[in-house]
Amino acid sequence: MRVSELVAASGVPLATVKYYLREGLLMPGEASSATQAVYGEQHVRRLALIKALAGVGLPLGKIRTIVGLVDHPADTVFDTLGRALAALPPYPVDGDRAAAGYPRARAVLERLGQVYEPSYPAVAQLERALAAAEDVGIPMTDERLEVYARHIRAIAEIDLELMPTDSVESAIEYAVLGTAIYEPVLAALRRLAHQDIGAETFSGRTFGDFTAPDATPHRQDES
Amino acid sequence: MRVSELVAASGVPLATVKYYLREGLLMPGEASSATQAVYGEQHVRRLALIKALAGVGLPLGKIRTIVGLVDHPADTVFDTLGRALAALPPYPVDGDRAAAGYPRARAVLERLGQVYEPSYPAVAQLERALAAAEDVGIPMTDERLEVYARHIRAIAEIDLELMPTDSVESAIEYAVLGTAIYEPVLAALRRLAHQDIGAETFSGRTFGDFTAPDATPHRQDES
Repeated sequence: MRVSELVAASGVPLATVKYYLREGLLMPGEASSATQAVYGEQHVRRLALIKALAGVGLPLGKIRTIVGLVDHPADTVFDTLGRALAALPPYPVDGDRAAAGYPRARAVLERLGQVYEPSYPAVAQLERALAAAEDVGIPMTDERLEVYARHIRAIAEIDLELMPTDSVESAIEYAVLGTAIYEPVLAALRRLAHQDIGAETFSGRTFGDFTAPDATPHRQDES
Repeated sequence: MRVSELVAASGVPLATVKYYLREGLLMPGEASSATQAVYGEQHVRRLALIKALAGVGLPLGKIRTIVGLVDHPADTVFDTLGRALAALPPYPVDGDRAAAGYPRARAVLERLGQVYEPSYPAVAQLERALAAAEDVGIPMTDERLEVYARHIRAIAEIDLELMPTDSVESAIEYAVLGTAIYEPVLAALRRLAHQDIGAETFSGRTFGDFTAPDATPHRQDES
């Protein structure tokens, strides 16, 4: 197809397509004359990937990293996906905690017996999140961690089970987009589960009942 | 204690304390003279709450809503916590989807048989998150939803079990801060669980093995 058809097929404006070509995010078409090139399904697919990555908030430099891994995967699947996932926000910022070796995150991961690569940003992300919980006075406890970790693992397992393995591109695309896009879904589901459980637990209860030493509401004989 | 002692005890600068007093976020002290007031533990506690809420990114107007509910709870526990939690981001933006009645979120919640209050922002949040998943080509499936919902519910249950019930203030504080502060922890734990499961699943595998029709790696006799 010609570039005008690529624009129509992808929904990406011509100026943006040209920009991606110049920046090397989109591979060049096959030259059909000195001034024209022919594009194919791979170009439509690449533009859809770039669009989706931009849509989850990735800056251009990070999108470049990911399409670079699609075109030139690392030696192993693990390294390739790890590097692609490292392109997702939140980006590490605290040299201090890195220097201190992420003590909270390491303690949690060692307790869980999980394999982890400290240079991948999820470790710094966990450290920061645990420190924030401490700061507001609701630090992670063993009891909470045990439940969270067990159920999050089950969620992560289905994520991996559903990963397509037909191509490097679809695996990377699924890993990156699925990780990013399902975090807000899970957050919303948790808030709605709180609401559903709360509706039952607190049904008709006032704070008077709630904070009374005997919290079980019971009817008084009116006499 | 005097205001200078309140500043020392809370770690909140004097100008900020005065600002919170003027804005009505911090209750006035007890006047001890025409120009002086005495503050107590409730003021230290309130400043800690305001600081923590600001720390999770809440704007002043939303902090006002929450401290207002601490001082004047709604009729029921459910309504009070619901209104407090509605002060958390993300804030609803799309009139269009509200008008369309959140079809994706409703379908999910009805499938799960959950009680929900459509005016609470978590419904809009779920709708937006599900639409985003659709947009990038990884729409929610029944299989994924069943696993996600079951395990998120178990997480929500421990959240509710661990809620303090000794006062309105501590219940609201826990509900709001615990909801906000543990979302990034759960997101990081999921990414790290992917890493741990991936390390095992993909151990030593290259994309050659991975995308081969027979994906089980096997050794060829070298001859």
